[in-house]
Amino acid sequence: MEESFKVTPWEVTGDIDYDLLAKKFGTTPLSKELTERLGDHPMLRRGIFYTHRDLNVYVNEHEKGNKVVLYTGRGPSGNTHLGHLMPWMFAKWLQDVLGIELYFQMTDDEKFLFKTDLSQEDTRRMAYENALDLVAVGFDPAKTKIILDSENIATLYPIALKVAKKVNFSTAKAVFGFDNTTNIGSIFFTTIQSAPAFLPSELEGKQVHCLIPCGIDQDPHFRVTRDVAPALGYPKPCLICCKMFPGLNGGDKMSSSDENSTIYTTDTPKQVKKKVGRAFTGGKVSVEEQRKEGGDPSVCAVFKYNYFLFESDDRKMNELAERCRNGEILCGECKVALTEKINVFLEGHQKRREEAKSIVQNMTFEGFKW
Amino acid sequence: MEESFKVTPWEVTGDIDYDLLAKKFGTTPLSKELTERLGDHPMLRRGIFYTHRDLNVYVNEHEKGNKVVLYTGRGPSGNTHLGHLMPWMFAKWLQDVLGIELYFQMTDDEKFLFKTDLSQEDTRRMAYENALDLVAVGFDPAKTKIILDSENIATLYPIALKVAKKVNFSTAKAVFGFDNTTNIGSIFFTTIQSAPAFLPSELEGKQVHCLIPCGIDQDPHFRVTRDVAPALGYPKPCLICCKMFPGLNGGDKMSSSDENSTIYTTDTPKQVKKKVGRAFTGGKVSVEEQRKEGGDPSVCAVFKYNYFLFESDDRKMNELAERCRNGEILCGECKVALTEKINVFLEGHQKRREEAKSIVQNMTFEGFKW
Repeated sequence: MEESFKVTPWEVTGDIDYDLLAKKFGTTPLSKELTERLGDHPMLRRGIFYTHRDLNVYVNEHEKGNKVVLYTGRGPSGNTHLGHLMPWMFAKWLQDVLGIELYFQMTDDEKFLFKTDLSQEDTRRMAYENALDLVAVGFDPAKTKIILDSENIATLYPIALKVAKKVNFSTAKAVFGFDNTTNIGSIFFTTIQSAPAFLPSELEGKQVHCLIPCGIDQDPHFRVTRDVAPALGYPKPCLICCKMFPGLNGGDKMSSSDENSTIYTTDTPKQVKKKVGRAFTGGKVSVEEQRKEGGDPSVCAVFKYNYFLFESDDRKMNELAERCRNGEILCGECKVALTEKINVFLEGHQKRREEAKSIVQNMTFEGFKW
Repeated sequence: MEESFKVTPWEVTGDIDYDLLAKKFGTTPLSKELTERLGDHPMLRRGIFYTHRDLNVYVNEHEKGNKVVLYTGRGPSGNTHLGHLMPWMFAKWLQDVLGIELYFQMTDDEKFLFKTDLSQEDTRRMAYENALDLVAVGFDPAKTKIILDSENIATLYPIALKVAKKVNFSTAKAVFGFDNTTNIGSIFFTTIQSAPAFLPSELEGKQVHCLIPCGIDQDPHFRVTRDVAPALGYPKPCLICCKMFPGLNGGDKMSSSDENSTIYTTDTPKQVKKKVGRAFTGGKVSVEEQRKEGGDPSVCAVFKYNYFLFESDDRKMNELAERCRNGEILCGECKVALTEKINVFLEGHQKRREEAKSIVQNMTFEGFKW
């Protein structure tokens, strides 16, 4: 049967069946027993982070007192939006509860290779802008290193070569869906994304496990990374994967290419109001009908935004769903409330983003200059 | 019709029909008018360097007083042998007569990717050893920069990415004969070999033409480089290509994998004597027969060694051929004479190779430390 959705590191389309996707990718559902060893977080409780690879191995290592690190990243192809912040906020929480280092990779090379219209100057500039958002999330500057591929390539390349020697075109084709028209840089690129997973082991001269909190769409990269790890003498990276942050248009993934359904970290209160005002909801065509029949929070983008990011209180979420289904609250009210929450959040974020300009230089891996 | 030979950057087999090969690759025969604009050199007179791409364009640029450079290189997979020295000696002559800079690339990454048994430490060590031979050839230290891919990758990578974005797997497959089993590093590698051709233009901020003196087996790389150059705003690299240096076993290419038919730069006089003593010649089965019927210099490795490298006097070569065909000189005599010539050459080379150890550090691109 043809699936009605497609998820690769470079393309997410259709209505994603997340359980089927995890099964297809071969990841393991997150159990309550396992997540409780990390702590309590709404994104865990709500199954936003919902699947993993070897998280148990990683937690064991940490509990034994062995050095472990976090690794995640960003392909800088445009402005940061809420969909990017979500897993970063979770990663920051992980850094806090585990008290460990984070390596954050900015793949400016990747975005140059995969995006026809972007120059290397473009993706580098975007990497800087994205890094400001990263810093604004509040990572510990003393424990966070930002890798920029074009700047740190001398350190990444020897590791990438080891990976590259173990991966043939057949594998790359099967995992990423490449074909004869794919450029040879894109074919090679996954090795560069593998490198930071092995970097801590290289730097420490011993086996250091890393945990990668990321969108499930990035899993294919790390499947390859994990496959080659044993032959190279590195531990397999462990993963904890989340669902995609939804678009305001009701789509499964917030997309930079649809500006109207995407909230950027630099949006003004007016822009946010306008975008949320146009959001897809589970409301009815008329006030009367909605008062009578109620709305459907399960398809509502406004409800999802609260669920994913803006309302951490489960009781309040249940109450909101209840009131919606009963027709006690209308879409307009929900939109006003969400707009307010987003704007309060962005006001703080934008302030921290300004402050980040004086901090971001201290967080570069190997001290490269932005 | 199936050709009886195969020439790629990584494999040379069969009896090479050089004219057919040039035709197949699409290079242009070197005319006397054109080579005379460079000057007189036995390897030009004798058609050892025999085919080119846009050499006329390059010579025009140089004659107009525009900056031009030379670029060649070495894949460090083992000890240097006479087959490697030959084009380097020609490149040194070009550097002298044109008075220009040479960029010399050591592709330690390539050899790691293509040779199953070699580690990155191996290829780097070999690069250093090969570099000593390079310096011993006598390049002007003030005008020669040795690039080591693993050390200079930060500068090469951005250029390589530009190339990579323009080359798809279909092209790489057609040009290099790759298939699904080829590792993704090997597929990407050609972009790294392209980079130094564009590096001078990047460094100068203007169009700088380069001439690549190299074995005809390297032409496929630069066909790709030339194809993408205009779209990237760089001048196409110009090429002057030579035939392969023959093996002592009578084969068309001296091969590192057949140690007995290969003379290394570090061989002792005794080793040289032994190897030349076993060389394939055009002699007859008995002295009597050879005295009567004469030998065949056209198939004789000893004769070829004189022709390619050890006897620059055309008159003496003709005389030697004549005496061989007439049965006036026997293989043993020729072998003794060649052994003597090689050993005199190697004595000087090995002395310069020792001296190179104090010079080679000053010739690294961007001052990397060996």
